[in-house]
Amino acid sequence: MSLLTVGSVAFDALETPFGKTDKIIGGAATYITLAASYFTKANNLVAVVGGDFPSEMIDILVSHGINTEGLQIKEEGKTFFWSGKYHEDMNTRDTIDVQLNVMGNFDPIIPDSYQGCEYLMLGNTAPAIQKQVLDRMNTRPKLVMLDTMNFWMDIAMPDLEAVLPLVDVLTINDEEARMLSGEYSLRKAANIIMKKGPKTLIIKKGEHGALLFQGDRIFFAPALPLEEVFDPTGAGDTFAGGFIGYLASTDDISFENMKRAIIYGSAMASFCVEKFGSERLVNLTEKEINQRVLEFVSLASFEIR
Amino acid sequence: MSLLTVGSVAFDALETPFGKTDKIIGGAATYITLAASYFTKANNLVAVVGGDFPSEMIDILVSHGINTEGLQIKEEGKTFFWSGKYHEDMNTRDTIDVQLNVMGNFDPIIPDSYQGCEYLMLGNTAPAIQKQVLDRMNTRPKLVMLDTMNFWMDIAMPDLEAVLPLVDVLTINDEEARMLSGEYSLRKAANIIMKKGPKTLIIKKGEHGALLFQGDRIFFAPALPLEEVFDPTGAGDTFAGGFIGYLASTDDISFENMKRAIIYGSAMASFCVEKFGSERLVNLTEKEINQRVLEFVSLASFEIR
Repeated sequence: MSLLTVGSVAFDALETPFGKTDKIIGGAATYITLAASYFTKANNLVAVVGGDFPSEMIDILVSHGINTEGLQIKEEGKTFFWSGKYHEDMNTRDTIDVQLNVMGNFDPIIPDSYQGCEYLMLGNTAPAIQKQVLDRMNTRPKLVMLDTMNFWMDIAMPDLEAVLPLVDVLTINDEEARMLSGEYSLRKAANIIMKKGPKTLIIKKGEHGALLFQGDRIFFAPALPLEEVFDPTGAGDTFAGGFIGYLASTDDISFENMKRAIIYGSAMASFCVEKFGSERLVNLTEKEINQRVLEFVSLASFEIR
Repeated sequence: MSLLTVGSVAFDALETPFGKTDKIIGGAATYITLAASYFTKANNLVAVVGGDFPSEMIDILVSHGINTEGLQIKEEGKTFFWSGKYHEDMNTRDTIDVQLNVMGNFDPIIPDSYQGCEYLMLGNTAPAIQKQVLDRMNTRPKLVMLDTMNFWMDIAMPDLEAVLPLVDVLTINDEEARMLSGEYSLRKAANIIMKKGPKTLIIKKGEHGALLFQGDRIFFAPALPLEEVFDPTGAGDTFAGGFIGYLASTDDISFENMKRAIIYGSAMASFCVEKFGSERLVNLTEKEINQRVLEFVSLASFEIR
């Protein structure tokens, strides 16, 4: 089944304890579509970049089977830029610089050929834009997933509250779940958040794994303990891309299949952090992914007698 | 098979966001032996208390089948006392008061009837005392497990380094693993720590579950997401007691059985935090424990097609 992803395609400049980069390709929709490309070839992108965005980077997306018809190129504008520095523990980071540029007035135009997409991934961007995308879909997709962050809870909570009733799956991290619900207990937080609209909630806990909530069902997926986390940028987006890419490819939105999808998403995220930016994501093999998934099986499985 | 636990039996005074207690029964060995009592009836305790320790509390231990022959009562002394206050997030706490009292010169005398125990649990106490216990065992137990904490790494690291080569299973939390190894990555930390002696390492991550390392094998056990954590005191000791109690009762120290033991330990810890102190641990039923273990199965199981 076909997937539509709307979100940012950007330049990032990163610094981690392991080194720093100049401007490299980044953005939520980049990570999402790249991760999803290993599962579905009906992989449609809506985003905006400036005239400074190198065509070779678009070629990389196209070479992964990503449909870039909906990628707007504003020749007169500059691409969204984010620069950040990670602390020693890699769990926290400081934003050094943000230049919204062409993202500042992003009009998410949906090409006609994208209409009828069954799976819609609303990558992290302004909730008003996320709602606009939904309004522009001629038919409601089978599954709508939304990613957001604390920034939007701070400055656009009413917009976020307006879009939440329209989505099926919300993905946020543990701090954001606490912020959105006002509850410290993630179990209580999940119940409050699901009342705001999304029937399914994924709480990402980074190196501590992820929790999947749906009604009174809970699934916990571990994160793979890695020797080295090189650069966590994009790990959450990669997770989301692997998750929804797997769902789209199997066209099965049962809870059991969502559990599998979370494992695939976690496996993709575990690759993402091994190198800077999306470097590791652009040249994975199916064999590597399947082997990584088997590591998750081995990590998490036990039998009670 | 029989279990011997050496550690503190104490008074605690606790304050959490949910309330506060006067002196209640606490101490590592109390939690360990109570948790283990649901798995093994050959459950031997070595500890020391003062004349102020109420006999009714000893009766509670005895009623759980715990052998208190090795519980020394120093009539002229006072029982070890710890008082602490938890922060809002329940993950951090301040120590308000510590009075070592009779623990200050604890001589861990092993009654003859305890000799030959196959499973030995060295609860958190001075590493020199833990080593003394090992020296006093006429035959080396089949499995020796040791719990310790950052406090001993600060003030008695040489003693700790001396006892580590003598134990099979070490259990510490994530911060302590980083402190003991000098590595942030828990996977790297585990490899360094296992080189210090213990072939098996359990890293407790509180609400984020636990990791079991043995050679190049890793198992991740989730923690049950709870509506409310009422009082975390003793959760780590309860986890250890459930773990080694299960191993002793099944007399199987294979990696597969240790995975099960971690689930049972986690289940016991999830009960512990539901009430103040050891209150919830003293009146559990086998049915409740088995139901809780099934919640872990449901939480963690998935199938890759």
